[in-house]
Amino acid sequence: MSEIRKHYFLPEYCIIAEERAKRPSDFAGPPEGSEKNPSESCVFCGANEEKTPPATAVYKNGEVFADTGEKRVSNWDFRCFPNLYPALSPPLSPAHSPAHSPASPPPGFPGKGLEVFPGSGFHEIIVESPVHGKKLKDFSDTEISGLMRVYKDRVCHYAAHEKIRYVSLFKNSGKSAGASLDHTHSQLIALPVCPPGLERELKAIRERKKCPYCTLLETEKTSPRLIHENSKFVAFAPYYSIGPFEVWILPKEHISFLGDFSPELLFAFGEILREVLRSYAKVLGNMPYNHMFYQLFETPEYHLNLRLLPRISTTAGFELNTGIYINTVSPEKAASYLRGDE
Amino acid sequence: MSEIRKHYFLPEYCIIAEERAKRPSDFAGPPEGSEKNPSESCVFCGANEEKTPPATAVYKNGEVFADTGEKRVSNWDFRCFPNLYPALSPPLSPAHSPAHSPASPPPGFPGKGLEVFPGSGFHEIIVESPVHGKKLKDFSDTEISGLMRVYKDRVCHYAAHEKIRYVSLFKNSGKSAGASLDHTHSQLIALPVCPPGLERELKAIRERKKCPYCTLLETEKTSPRLIHENSKFVAFAPYYSIGPFEVWILPKEHISFLGDFSPELLFAFGEILREVLRSYAKVLGNMPYNHMFYQLFETPEYHLNLRLLPRISTTAGFELNTGIYINTVSPEKAASYLRGDE
Repeated sequence: MSEIRKHYFLPEYCIIAEERAKRPSDFAGPPEGSEKNPSESCVFCGANEEKTPPATAVYKNGEVFADTGEKRVSNWDFRCFPNLYPALSPPLSPAHSPAHSPASPPPGFPGKGLEVFPGSGFHEIIVESPVHGKKLKDFSDTEISGLMRVYKDRVCHYAAHEKIRYVSLFKNSGKSAGASLDHTHSQLIALPVCPPGLERELKAIRERKKCPYCTLLETEKTSPRLIHENSKFVAFAPYYSIGPFEVWILPKEHISFLGDFSPELLFAFGEILREVLRSYAKVLGNMPYNHMFYQLFETPEYHLNLRLLPRISTTAGFELNTGIYINTVSPEKAASYLRGDE
Repeated sequence: MSEIRKHYFLPEYCIIAEERAKRPSDFAGPPEGSEKNPSESCVFCGANEEKTPPATAVYKNGEVFADTGEKRVSNWDFRCFPNLYPALSPPLSPAHSPAHSPASPPPGFPGKGLEVFPGSGFHEIIVESPVHGKKLKDFSDTEISGLMRVYKDRVCHYAAHEKIRYVSLFKNSGKSAGASLDHTHSQLIALPVCPPGLERELKAIRERKKCPYCTLLETEKTSPRLIHENSKFVAFAPYYSIGPFEVWILPKEHISFLGDFSPELLFAFGEILREVLRSYAKVLGNMPYNHMFYQLFETPEYHLNLRLLPRISTTAGFELNTGIYINTVSPEKAASYLRGDE
């Protein structure tokens, strides 16, 4: 099982997950662009279900199933299963392990001043289509809003677990964005701790009278950084952008958690996400990117947002040293390109 | 001139530096491994001084010179000059611009709730050898301690400037670590703000009675994570490691700033840095890596440290979302490899 280790004196964490370990000679990975591609060998493709762990949830014609034992559901629309190389592993049942929380380090205390927690959690793959090479930008209305429903369901499923404090839902698209397989998929990692960045945000939000996301929405709705808007959402290049063509999508309504989204809101969310991805494709081609959900459950002060970041610049020594990002494209310029002005 | 923009409601900053901007069609960079290599065309090589801006400091046989006008000093050992594509530009003289500090945004206030500061600062390249292909691990005693002296001098030079609050000194080695040129060099970016991560560290340090770096040194000196040690320094794989084979080098003595290093301390620093780089080369070959100095001037509470990070894992959606890093090699295992145990 992996370990969640705390920084010596800061509220920061790393996950030591040797399940994924290799020998040093294996570290020089394959060069960029050498993703395993041929669809017959792709384990995420429809008809290759046997090559992955049994699914925890399989979506088919709007209904939800699960693989039972060795029998796999076929002809699915979306398929969710545990990552074969998990960063975190499901908590053992209470009968087998004492209840460890971040407040109570496990018996194997690592030394004076050092803190460790068991790497309890969940790491799930969400395959977004059975079809190899299909991209979110080309999803139909039914497909994209279906995916939003899957996102909502899976986040709710893990948020309900008593040991889970945060559910990280994200997509790595392209090798330099961290994807090891080309077939379109997202990932979900459910954590027993709240990430330090979210804690800091929440602290700053609680010190204010009005939700700062609601405030910035007012500004960005009429700013030169606005990119797309529909009845429920706004997509814009944030004034504080950590890289070229970063985009944030915010619901106009103050809402903190995907679990509280109505079907109407899910539909509008899928629509604007697809719109942004189409703009990316027009301006940047097949650029690797990440998208990440920022949301908190049982925390109504928070304002959910989705952030998209094309992987154009390299995070180098300066960014690692300072946490300050150098961005060579102003958000105003990025928004202009993504709106199609030039 | 670039801009330093503040996050909407957090003490975080990004630098919008369009001097380095390209059109979107230029963003798909050359593939990994395609660094410009041939030494005759390398602008950092000895005898190619004319191809870079005039040097602000040139080290030659232990003496320091500077290029004057169009005349360039040749046959140098180390050469420092302004980055042609600077993230920050030198502050204008007081006669031309009012004194802007982070506490006083400039006249071009960008909108309600948004804060910007002029991108005033310095961005310098430190070429570490006139010889193409030379690596720090192969430096002689004189060369490596000479480089430490250059590091000290340049950091002091910029720390003395009234508008500078932090000097980031770092090395990007290899393309995926952010180096655009192969020839061995470091960079220095002098900032008018203190980075948020350092501010957070300092706050946590000030809340304690004893320096937490001094405390962790005591632990790591006898831990399975110890890698190398000499009379003045300890090199270890930190218990909290954000990636495989991360190494921290700490002076045994509590000292906050490179400017306070004696020649003896500089010598021992160069020695242990070279030792770590030799271990990296043995275990990881020619792996791209970054090294970054963490130090503060006029802040005796801080404990200087140098961190080295081979660029093995990709920072993907999960790390961007949570700030929590997944590390597939435990520091104990990494230290064992780097010590040469197996």
